Amino acid sequence: MAEIARVDASCSTFMMVHTCLAMLTIAMCGSEEQKEKYLPSLARLDTISCWALTEPDYGSDASSLGTTATKVKGGWLLNGQKRWIGNSTFADVCVVFARNAETNEINGFIVKKGASGFSVKKIENKIGLRIVQNGDIVLRGFFVPDEDRLTGMNSFKDTAKVLAVSRIVVAWQPIGISMGVYDICHRYLQERKQFGVPLASFQLCQEKLVRMLGNIQAMMLIGWRLCKLYEAGKMTPGQASLGKAWTTLRARETVALGRELLGGNGILADFLVAKAFCDLEPIYTYEGTYDVNSLVTGREVTGIASFKAPKRRSAL
Amino acid sequence: MAEIARVDASCSTFMMVHTCLAMLTIAMCGSEEQKEKYLPSLARLDTISCWALTEPDYGSDASSLGTTATKVKGGWLLNGQKRWIGNSTFADVCVVFARNAETNEINGFIVKKGASGFSVKKIENKIGLRIVQNGDIVLRGFFVPDEDRLTGMNSFKDTAKVLAVSRIVVAWQPIGISMGVYDICHRYLQERKQFGVPLASFQLCQEKLVRMLGNIQAMMLIGWRLCKLYEAGKMTPGQASLGKAWTTLRARETVALGRELLGGNGILADFLVAKAFCDLEPIYTYEGTYDVNSLVTGREVTGIASFKAPKRRSAL
Amino acid sequence: MAEIARVDASCSTFMMVHTCLAMLTIAMCGSEEQKEKYLPSLARLDTISCWALTEPDYGSDASSLGTTATKVKGGWLLNGQKRWIGNSTFADVCVVFARNAETNEINGFIVKKGASGFSVKKIENKIGLRIVQNGDIVLRGFFVPDEDRLTGMNSFKDTAKVLAVSRIVVAWQPIGISMGVYDICHRYLQERKQFGVPLASFQLCQEKLVRMLGNIQAMMLIGWRLCKLYEAGKMTPGQASLGKAWTTLRARETVALGRELLGGNGILADFLVAKAFCDLEPIYTYEGTYDVNSLVTGREVTGIASFKAPKRRSAL
Amino acid sequence: MAEIARVDASCSTFMMVHTCLAMLTIAMCGSEEQKEKYLPSLARLDTISCWALTEPDYGSDASSLGTTATKVKGGWLLNGQKRWIGNSTFADVCVVFARNAETNEINGFIVKKGASGFSVKKIENKIGLRIVQNGDIVLRGFFVPDEDRLTGMNSFKDTAKVLAVSRIVVAWQPIGISMGVYDICHRYLQERKQFGVPLASFQLCQEKLVRMLGNIQAMMLIGWRLCKLYEAGKMTPGQASLGKAWTTLRARETVALGRELLGGNGILADFLVAKAFCDLEPIYTYEGTYDVNSLVTGREVTGIASFKAPKRRSAL
Repeated sequence: MAEIARVDASCSTFMMVHTCLAMLTIAMCGSEEQKEKYLPSLARLDTISCWALTEPDYGSDASSLGTTATKVKGGWLLNGQKRWIGNSTFADVCVVFARNAETNEINGFIVKKGASGFSVKKIENKIGLRIVQNGDIVLRGFFVPDEDRLTGMNSFKDTAKVLAVSRIVVAWQPIGISMGVYDICHRYLQERKQFGVPLASFQLCQEKLVRMLGNIQAMMLIGWRLCKLYEAGKMTPGQASLGKAWTTLRARETVALGRELLGGNGILADFLVAKAFCDLEPIYTYEGTYDVNSLVTGREVTGIASFKAPKRRSAL
Repeated sequence: MAEIARVDASCSTFMMVHTCLAMLTIAMCGSEEQKEKYLPSLARLDTISCWALTEPDYGSDASSLGTTATKVKGGWLLNGQKRWIGNSTFADVCVVFARNAETNEINGFIVKKGASGFSVKKIENKIGLRIVQNGDIVLRGFFVPDEDRLTGMNSFKDTAKVLAVSRIVVAWQPIGISMGVYDICHRYLQERKQFGVPLASFQLCQEKLVRMLGNIQAMMLIGWRLCKLYEAGKMTPGQASLGKAWTTLRARETVALGRELLGGNGILADFLVAKAFCDLEPIYTYEGTYDVNSLVTGREVTGIASFKAPKRRSAL
Repeated sequence: MAEIARVDASCSTFMMVHTCLAMLTIAMCGSEEQKEKYLPSLARLDTISCWALTEPDYGSDASSLGTTATKVKGGWLLNGQKRWIGNSTFADVCVVFARNAETNEINGFIVKKGASGFSVKKIENKIGLRIVQNGDIVLRGFFVPDEDRLTGMNSFKDTAKVLAVSRIVVAWQPIGISMGVYDICHRYLQERKQFGVPLASFQLCQEKLVRMLGNIQAMMLIGWRLCKLYEAGKMTPGQASLGKAWTTLRARETVALGRELLGGNGILADFLVAKAFCDLEPIYTYEGTYDVNSLVTGREVTGIASFKAPKRRSAL
Repeated sequence: MAEIARVDASCSTFMMVHTCLAMLTIAMCGSEEQKEKYLPSLARLDTISCWALTEPDYGSDASSLGTTATKVKGGWLLNGQKRWIGNSTFADVCVVFARNAETNEINGFIVKKGASGFSVKKIENKIGLRIVQNGDIVLRGFFVPDEDRLTGMNSFKDTAKVLAVSRIVVAWQPIGISMGVYDICHRYLQERKQFGVPLASFQLCQEKLVRMLGNIQAMMLIGWRLCKLYEAGKMTPGQASLGKAWTTLRARETVALGRELLGGNGILADFLVAKAFCDLEPIYTYEGTYDVNSLVTGREVTGIASFKAPKRRSAL
């Protein structure tokens, strides 16, 4: 994932959504039949998937989502809206989260696009990850047969489990982006001359480059450690959230330094650094903003949840 | 300038290049005849101007520029290349800086576009100030009549004087951009709800908004003080450079906070904050990068120039 | 205040507590008789005052203080504890805030030391403002005659008014401290040589010095503007809080840069920078921490208070 | 080293100077006889050692040191001054670096204290690492017998090799300090209540604690990786310098957050966080300042040395 992001973060996001959100959810929460039916084709990229959790009014507060799933004969009717769904404009299959109208719990459904009641509109004018097509989805009485309800997805806790795993992978995107920016800066500082010498001769340039390098080495080790913990079955959700939050925080610092090192050429997408600078922003925010992931970890280490604010009283 | 940048930084840059670089140079370094001939039409926007100092190989080290002006009968022949020249693709008039082949000093010329020997190519794929058209200019034996040589531009020191004044104006661009970002964030935090309450209810959101506000108030006062010093005839080049460097430094911090406050919507140009976030980057770098302006001020307060690095020896 | 802090921040804190907390409270909330009785002697420094709001359990949440004032014949009995009270070990007069046992509102009392029921213990081992003597005060049935109850102090709102004014003055302390640090760094960089040249010759040193200078100019303008608003009767509490919060934030950055510029000598109190680095920390925190002041301003600009957290439920 | 620093950084510095500078130099550059003579007693702490490289005029530019070693019959005469030498007021043995008057190269000597010509004065008024006794040493014709000249120390390159190794160990000091600060903050946030709930309930507190935790995990991994590279014989000097520079940079951020989290109690040395905040500063600066270590790494990754500035010309 890092090596793809090192070259193009949009490409890595496409892969992340397809494999680490949609396929992973099916793998973690699907029945054996569902896995056999969907995963081989998705793994071959013969079919493409997307993953629909976020809604226009529920981003950071995703667990309160409003899309409903109402039981009808032979299946379920989905009603609601989804927002920011990457790959959704062209995906064949969409994993959709909806609130079971009966139990009030979050359930998951495998939705095949094409049937009526499902419409997608591409979100325009993004400043980053411009190759990734995000869509606004509207579900109006969309029918999903019983066999496509994810049998292992029975509450938001199951979603959180998927997110914890995918956050390990997301954490490698800012690492890869930062590596790509470093690669170019390292070369640029030696090739570009001002005042008769390579930019690399200047203290102010060297210190920036070295700070970037220190950040990147630390990010890589954080990402590596997270994988080791996961493989050992010891990774907690708070560790995954911290990994994602911290690597994006340091990557933001790193790519801003790189943008600055490239001077005027740092504002041209051709030099890749400018593009990377913009691509990082959605990543800083998606799969839990920096703040939300910090509070997920904060809850784990203090035992106290601080997501919510006191209700506003009418009179101040 | 700030009020224009508050809405659209490209628009303010167009105005800045036209009035505070090109027109200002003619006003400060032109003869009475030149002022009468060019300024009224430019002031009415009947004709548009651009200003060509930077070259492909001389950005921060602008005083070493390589474009030459060779005296010929009745005028001068200009040869060389210019880069990043804002407005140049559509401007009628271009103020061009070139090295007098005889004296080796920097001279200035008013160039009317259209004649042969002057070609412009638009620079594509910028991430910021996308409305501003920057061009790569090639001058091949371009003839300028004697009457269009700026009589008061006799060395790089004259250029530096113009830059010192224009930097006051440039300093107001990051201020305006930050004000515009604050406007939107202030409204967004009250309108957007998560966890059942407006985002403004959360400590992490409030602290960011307030930090932005503190930065903006300080930037405005820095810009205001710079104008007062200038009006009183007391402003030094180091003060102008510090004003430009410091306001862009704090604006960079401010718009990054704003970008974060808008969450997912902060990556859509429609919400203006994302656009402002990108627009600030070229401003952080043009008219002297943050580092170069810092060193201009550093030279003034310490009496020691530190722009150059020791020449690299062949063996380390 | 800034000029005193420029040389020694403890000295400025002594003056601030005496004049801008204790004397100011008497001036703003005392009767004419109280003003005549106490202020002239305090103004001549014939008597010294302190100001006791904070308690061991109520710092940021000062308005919930627990010290009580119970009406008895001819006066009041004060019971409770106060903490961090500057000057309290040697002051003659102490302005004490206590909760009126009847109305439950905050009242203020002028307490003359010496009588029984009032004991003070000096707080040891502070890392900053070491000359300032802060005390832990215990009040055990301490009697205050009716004439020494501040007639204009009837609720925490009155205390907040005093704090808003004193915060203007406190804001000048970090400004003065930063100026003093700059003074020394500016000289040191030119006197101290390494690699055969003054430290001021190095880009990494110049940029730090210039960043300090930009911060200081901005802080001074913020402080100046606050005074102008106050003089015009227009200053709001949120503006005062922002002024205090923002100047301490930037001062913290500034003195850390200065500490670094002095290298090894930056850890010796003799060179003053090290002392200033430590002195700033209590100032960053007293009269409202950075966070609390930010939220005071946040409440003003958003209309929403975010000081409190939801009550913790027994089960997470 | 980290576990000692977690409790008291002075104690870890004492150990670091004794083992990782003085003993390490003897181990790396001493003859077999010298190792046998000195190391066992030092290892048992029966004798204590110090290490004298820095001089009043040569800190960052240590390789230019001015103390001389002049060959005389049977030994060497040392003349010069040393500064900041930790443990020197009470150490039994001191490793001294001096310039061979004949070869002009840096040599090393094992100096037993007590003989005439060697005087030490304790440096007073340090703000950090107050238990560590640093001394100003004056050597006036101090005689060292031939057998105590370190046979493997023949140029500054040999000193640099020792420093590269000791920097691995120094890098663990900021890690340990940060861990200790985190320990206390983590407990304090749960015990200290304001507004009726533990401080840990507030978003602004949780985010700071989590940012500290992210930094600490990354620092630990950087330190661990450095050890692994060293053990595998692959660690370069630039990696060691980056390790030391980067961990101190992040530790500085971390302890400042911790200092803030403790509010007023954060300025009392009793709570350890205040002490740790001060102890970090000398560590940020010793064994190569942040800037010098950055440029050591910068030289390694770019192939260009940028330590020196162009000589100042008499006229600017």
